[in-house]
Amino acid sequence: MYNKFLVEKIIKNALIEDMNYGDTTTDLLIDDSSVSEAYMVAKESGVIAGLYVAERVFKLLDENIVFKVLKKDGTLVEKGEKISEIKGSTKNILKGERLALNLLQRMSGIASASRKYADLVKNYETRIVDTRKTTPNLRILEKYAVGVGGCYNHRFNLSDAVMIKDNHIKAVGSIKTAVRKIRENIPHTTKIEVEVTSLKELEEALDIGADIIMLDNMDLDNMKRAVEITKGRAILEASGNITLERIKDIATIGVDVISVGALTHSVKAMDISLMMMD
Amino acid sequence: MYNKFLVEKIIKNALIEDMNYGDTTTDLLIDDSSVSEAYMVAKESGVIAGLYVAERVFKLLDENIVFKVLKKDGTLVEKGEKISEIKGSTKNILKGERLALNLLQRMSGIASASRKYADLVKNYETRIVDTRKTTPNLRILEKYAVGVGGCYNHRFNLSDAVMIKDNHIKAVGSIKTAVRKIRENIPHTTKIEVEVTSLKELEEALDIGADIIMLDNMDLDNMKRAVEITKGRAILEASGNITLERIKDIATIGVDVISVGALTHSVKAMDISLMMMD
Amino acid sequence: MYNKFLVEKIIKNALIEDMNYGDTTTDLLIDDSSVSEAYMVAKESGVIAGLYVAERVFKLLDENIVFKVLKKDGTLVEKGEKISEIKGSTKNILKGERLALNLLQRMSGIASASRKYADLVKNYETRIVDTRKTTPNLRILEKYAVGVGGCYNHRFNLSDAVMIKDNHIKAVGSIKTAVRKIRENIPHTTKIEVEVTSLKELEEALDIGADIIMLDNMDLDNMKRAVEITKGRAILEASGNITLERIKDIATIGVDVISVGALTHSVKAMDISLMMMD
Amino acid sequence: MYNKFLVEKIIKNALIEDMNYGDTTTDLLIDDSSVSEAYMVAKESGVIAGLYVAERVFKLLDENIVFKVLKKDGTLVEKGEKISEIKGSTKNILKGERLALNLLQRMSGIASASRKYADLVKNYETRIVDTRKTTPNLRILEKYAVGVGGCYNHRFNLSDAVMIKDNHIKAVGSIKTAVRKIRENIPHTTKIEVEVTSLKELEEALDIGADIIMLDNMDLDNMKRAVEITKGRAILEASGNITLERIKDIATIGVDVISVGALTHSVKAMDISLMMMD
Amino acid sequence: MYNKFLVEKIIKNALIEDMNYGDTTTDLLIDDSSVSEAYMVAKESGVIAGLYVAERVFKLLDENIVFKVLKKDGTLVEKGEKISEIKGSTKNILKGERLALNLLQRMSGIASASRKYADLVKNYETRIVDTRKTTPNLRILEKYAVGVGGCYNHRFNLSDAVMIKDNHIKAVGSIKTAVRKIRENIPHTTKIEVEVTSLKELEEALDIGADIIMLDNMDLDNMKRAVEITKGRAILEASGNITLERIKDIATIGVDVISVGALTHSVKAMDISLMMMD
Amino acid sequence: MYNKFLVEKIIKNALIEDMNYGDTTTDLLIDDSSVSEAYMVAKESGVIAGLYVAERVFKLLDENIVFKVLKKDGTLVEKGEKISEIKGSTKNILKGERLALNLLQRMSGIASASRKYADLVKNYETRIVDTRKTTPNLRILEKYAVGVGGCYNHRFNLSDAVMIKDNHIKAVGSIKTAVRKIRENIPHTTKIEVEVTSLKELEEALDIGADIIMLDNMDLDNMKRAVEITKGRAILEASGNITLERIKDIATIGVDVISVGALTHSVKAMDISLMMMD
Repeated sequence: MYNKFLVEKIIKNALIEDMNYGDTTTDLLIDDSSVSEAYMVAKESGVIAGLYVAERVFKLLDENIVFKVLKKDGTLVEKGEKISEIKGSTKNILKGERLALNLLQRMSGIASASRKYADLVKNYETRIVDTRKTTPNLRILEKYAVGVGGCYNHRFNLSDAVMIKDNHIKAVGSIKTAVRKIRENIPHTTKIEVEVTSLKELEEALDIGADIIMLDNMDLDNMKRAVEITKGRAILEASGNITLERIKDIATIGVDVISVGALTHSVKAMDISLMMMD
Repeated sequence: MYNKFLVEKIIKNALIEDMNYGDTTTDLLIDDSSVSEAYMVAKESGVIAGLYVAERVFKLLDENIVFKVLKKDGTLVEKGEKISEIKGSTKNILKGERLALNLLQRMSGIASASRKYADLVKNYETRIVDTRKTTPNLRILEKYAVGVGGCYNHRFNLSDAVMIKDNHIKAVGSIKTAVRKIRENIPHTTKIEVEVTSLKELEEALDIGADIIMLDNMDLDNMKRAVEITKGRAILEASGNITLERIKDIATIGVDVISVGALTHSVKAMDISLMMMD
Repeated sequence: MYNKFLVEKIIKNALIEDMNYGDTTTDLLIDDSSVSEAYMVAKESGVIAGLYVAERVFKLLDENIVFKVLKKDGTLVEKGEKISEIKGSTKNILKGERLALNLLQRMSGIASASRKYADLVKNYETRIVDTRKTTPNLRILEKYAVGVGGCYNHRFNLSDAVMIKDNHIKAVGSIKTAVRKIRENIPHTTKIEVEVTSLKELEEALDIGADIIMLDNMDLDNMKRAVEITKGRAILEASGNITLERIKDIATIGVDVISVGALTHSVKAMDISLMMMD
Repeated sequence: MYNKFLVEKIIKNALIEDMNYGDTTTDLLIDDSSVSEAYMVAKESGVIAGLYVAERVFKLLDENIVFKVLKKDGTLVEKGEKISEIKGSTKNILKGERLALNLLQRMSGIASASRKYADLVKNYETRIVDTRKTTPNLRILEKYAVGVGGCYNHRFNLSDAVMIKDNHIKAVGSIKTAVRKIRENIPHTTKIEVEVTSLKELEEALDIGADIIMLDNMDLDNMKRAVEITKGRAILEASGNITLERIKDIATIGVDVISVGALTHSVKAMDISLMMMD
Repeated sequence: MYNKFLVEKIIKNALIEDMNYGDTTTDLLIDDSSVSEAYMVAKESGVIAGLYVAERVFKLLDENIVFKVLKKDGTLVEKGEKISEIKGSTKNILKGERLALNLLQRMSGIASASRKYADLVKNYETRIVDTRKTTPNLRILEKYAVGVGGCYNHRFNLSDAVMIKDNHIKAVGSIKTAVRKIRENIPHTTKIEVEVTSLKELEEALDIGADIIMLDNMDLDNMKRAVEITKGRAILEASGNITLERIKDIATIGVDVISVGALTHSVKAMDISLMMMD
Repeated sequence: MYNKFLVEKIIKNALIEDMNYGDTTTDLLIDDSSVSEAYMVAKESGVIAGLYVAERVFKLLDENIVFKVLKKDGTLVEKGEKISEIKGSTKNILKGERLALNLLQRMSGIASASRKYADLVKNYETRIVDTRKTTPNLRILEKYAVGVGGCYNHRFNLSDAVMIKDNHIKAVGSIKTAVRKIRENIPHTTKIEVEVTSLKELEEALDIGADIIMLDNMDLDNMKRAVEITKGRAILEASGNITLERIKDIATIGVDVISVGALTHSVKAMDISLMMMD
């Protein structure tokens, strides 16, 4: 679920960023004819995501490098397990190493965190979803990693779904007016989400037929009432102040979706190394 | 210490990523003539970094937006403190909000973490420095934030300093040969760093006159010996397995530089909000 | 509902395409200090769309050019009516003339055609929508023009809504399986459309809860049955072999949406001229 | 007569436009290992143009796709005839389908229209040529298609030939002054065209040695006189108010070139489908 | 005679090349509020070309910098003369200094050399023209500078004029066939140049009506005969082995154009300095 | 020591610059199926540099072209010697010819000049280095060619080494203050160079521990004193008014580095031809 052309732009720009005039040390010390075998290994347990991207780093540097995936995206690996093998020009393996790892570690960090969140709700109908709090210009990779980890994506951008917030409602006077104006203008293929802060607003949003209703910073009692009122007429999304502790409670209540910015805005990179074999 | 043209590329690409066809909700509900005042506020304490970048987001969307900095980069703000004020077109403030925050939160997260590390060594001559483990295509912003927080930068890329590692040494046979070959070819303006894993290698690197020597995964005793042996003839850099706990010990010993990948590879975004005023 | 950054890319690239080394004739014959007034005038009646884009052409060439809109986007103008006035550097008006007109004429051509289609269904609940049969790299402008003319947009691209077609269904065996697999993986903000060719398939799509169902090349009788069967449980979209003659019939039956590729794939540019005043 | 690099830019940008985050439906439902055969078929008669471009769409997505041309560019195909065969990854055939068709249909539409115009003058020395009224950023493809259809190209851009119009003449006072000033400055490889509206201006342009003279909106009688006066001393180009009906008359008179904006500004896409074989 | 958008691309890319992460020294030592006055001064005599480009360097860095032209493009300045004054932010003047000078020195070097060549033929009808031997990606600037110096441009690129060379002729059998095939296909706005190596070929080229005929490496006697034979029926261009000494002789003979690669492929930069005033 | 991605950008942009709509002559006259052999040959003696770049030109046009290097970069070739052989599509060899030569001639011109400078100091410890006076956007290629010729590179850009000049010193008051402020802020991997104009300043720079000291426009006597004073405590660089005659004298004195702008700002292209074989 990648757009190959966007991924290649990211990689080429990042290799230019990391090398600029070239990898001086490697260019001067390693023979063009030198070939090596290397492998990527987990230095801690986690869920792997991004092997296609890591492979593209090496392939764009040198199409003759062989990159063999040992643990596919989505696999939970333990510390010490090999993730992939790389064979080919020593020079190009060394040049691609840092970027391939930077991308793989970040994406696997996101997948690993997502897995933890996903596990919390695995016995429920509730989904954990990401937000637009992604790293600028890497959204396509980060949203992919969220999915690999078992969580789900919210909208990709400001034009593929409507989200009517506080300020939008104020600007036109009411939820009803806002939804109507939007509905008259957007594609029939686009869903409308409305952010509400009270049950009264919830009912207004339900009346006008919002597809998704975000319960903004509601406490558990209100969320419970919201589920009862909604009766499946709209998708309910809990947002704001979502801690690991509260997630199960929210899921138990029957809210459909819980959005968690921390899936992508505060990533702990998974520790992965590339080892050259002698 | 920004390159304006690189920063603008990052922002324009990210706004395209975030909007694609436009901000449907805002474009349909907010009047072109509507103006607003807003402010950015810290939702937790931390060190601010990136206000120039946040400002550029709004200015590139709309050069008439006024962005007033209340807490300059490097300021430690407390929860609840206002960071900046923004006045102008409601539409464009809403369109820029998410990206401005995504960048500011990430950069302030890095600055805040850097401040913590910097504080640990403030009574020592030792520097904490970052690594190349930065977010692909955002290195310029992340290295800036590290500096704002009080830590320092390692080399920016593979061509502005030489770093001779394990594999390079193996390829040519010895540290001595490696350094000589490099020195014969690189600009006189470029420093040479050698990674060593033993005191014997350290002495070899000192003999051949390396500018910087990285002590890779050494224990405290060996690092102590390394400092004694080196006697200021080269900059010593500790790397690998650097925990918060060990940093003071390493600083006490007198190692010049400690490099910490976690400054940038595992960022906890600082919580900052943009509030529209009624 | 524009993304300013995408629009500017289109314009800058097109000005480079049209000038390459410069406008030789104008650069050699017209004084830098020469200023002119000009106006755009309709040479036939039609619905204007694209004045913002036309203005940006001149502004990107020369920010001092004044572009005054006389007939806003969406206005039906008659032959001979003035659409806009332009004042400023003669050189830059001449350099921007062709591109501004090429864009405005195409967009107004689309808006004018859309208005004709829209008028056909104005007494019905039915919408006429566009397709992905747009001019490569100008989709953002063409979809905008469709809206200006009174028709509506279908999905913008392959990732902002799902469209399950014949080949997708074959690949997984049944509509049911296809929709389930999709629904498990896509954002809760994304709608699912299924293409059906028979009433049996329609029922299958309704059972599994498709949001939108495309009736592919169905005759009027079958469409009528489809509306009766569906009873509002999904949005029905007629597609294929849509002639001007059939549109009213389809609308009368109560199909919600009719998609018409010809809105964008076969555009008759509206005839508009730029006249320099003496 | 393509510039491969410009064509690839157009295609890559257009695939990003059409997919953005990816082809969700196809990515989720079609196996990576699935292979298919497909063919492109004419749904109406017309002249094919753009098969190289269509092929590049698939090849850039997947270099292993085999694209076999059955009817070369310039062939007049009848409804129902196969144009090309495509074999390879089902996923990538589906991803490229729309863009390949959008380009091929537009280019074949232009070629088909051009053929009609070309046929009108096939017994005459007169050429039908295009104008700069092309789709922004697709000029290279559209001018190619004009040639495939049997018509000819006018200048590609504002710097590869000089065209002195009304406003240029006014600015310097006379045709004579304008041509002299131009001739003193432009490359000896560049031709000069002058737009005239009367026989008096024609004589002035001939006297000063213009290479090409555009007879702007002249009636048949005046054009006839113009041909007699010119006696082959310059290429004569008829422009303005060119209807299909008048073309033969103009050709009969012996005007060398007739320029027709409608060749590219108002394209009716040729109806072509891609069919997947079971 | 510039394309502003191409010039800005050149400058922005070059500033990124020259700064990468920023101008470390200047960013750290010069206050944002510091303003300076500076001037550009000739360190040797020469013809100035490129002041618009130099100005754009500073303006793109900082639109508030004031750049005052003292000696317009085309002026022959003596050693010690001031060329321009610059006022504004010290930081941004220092950041733009090197690039502005690199461009101005190169362009003025070309203009100065061109002036020398132009002076040689000033009493003749003969033009000295440049070639395609320009610096890759700077052709637009270098061809402009040639004109400033008083020489002329040959074709800009491979599609704005035809040049039939040796290999082309061989491929189709004869000059006649080559010209005919070309003429049938190219725009009526494009000239045809044929390269000939003998008087026999010259006659063949004249017979078929070539617009321009390049006399490739001909000696003076043959060139003389060529002029006599041609009698103005085509533009004659001398090329190959053009030394300063031979130019007058060739001009005396009456050859129309002499093409000189050295105008751009071997540029001696004009020595120009930027001086900051105390 | 190339960055492949930067090189490919340069080449693709330059091919677009040189072809624009295509190589009209070649596209119309040469068969797609025609294959040729060609070779590059030195028309004068010189040091070859840039064969990888020349090869990439052809390979990017057509990956099936075979490019065989006969004289590797750094080889001194004599007039008449073959440098490389090229086999493949005649069309693509002709299309790449000019750009490949433009790049190779320029780079070989730089390498040849560098060899001359290098030979002057071959019996000394002194290095000749380049400057930032390179062709905008071709620095990576030109600095490479300098190295091929046997000279050395100065810093690549404004952020990979510090150079404290006159204006920087004035801004902060003294060399001491400037170096301290810089040293507190820059990476430990970055060297500091200080420009001095007197022995007094030299001593100040030595005291504060500058890594490199540029002796700006000093006469031989002062340089001699500078070497004696410095005693190897810093690298000494002579700059300004460096003529071929003075170089040996400066080297004899024992200055470490002599920087010469003319290596790149005033290049005489080496004369190299591409010959098609019959």
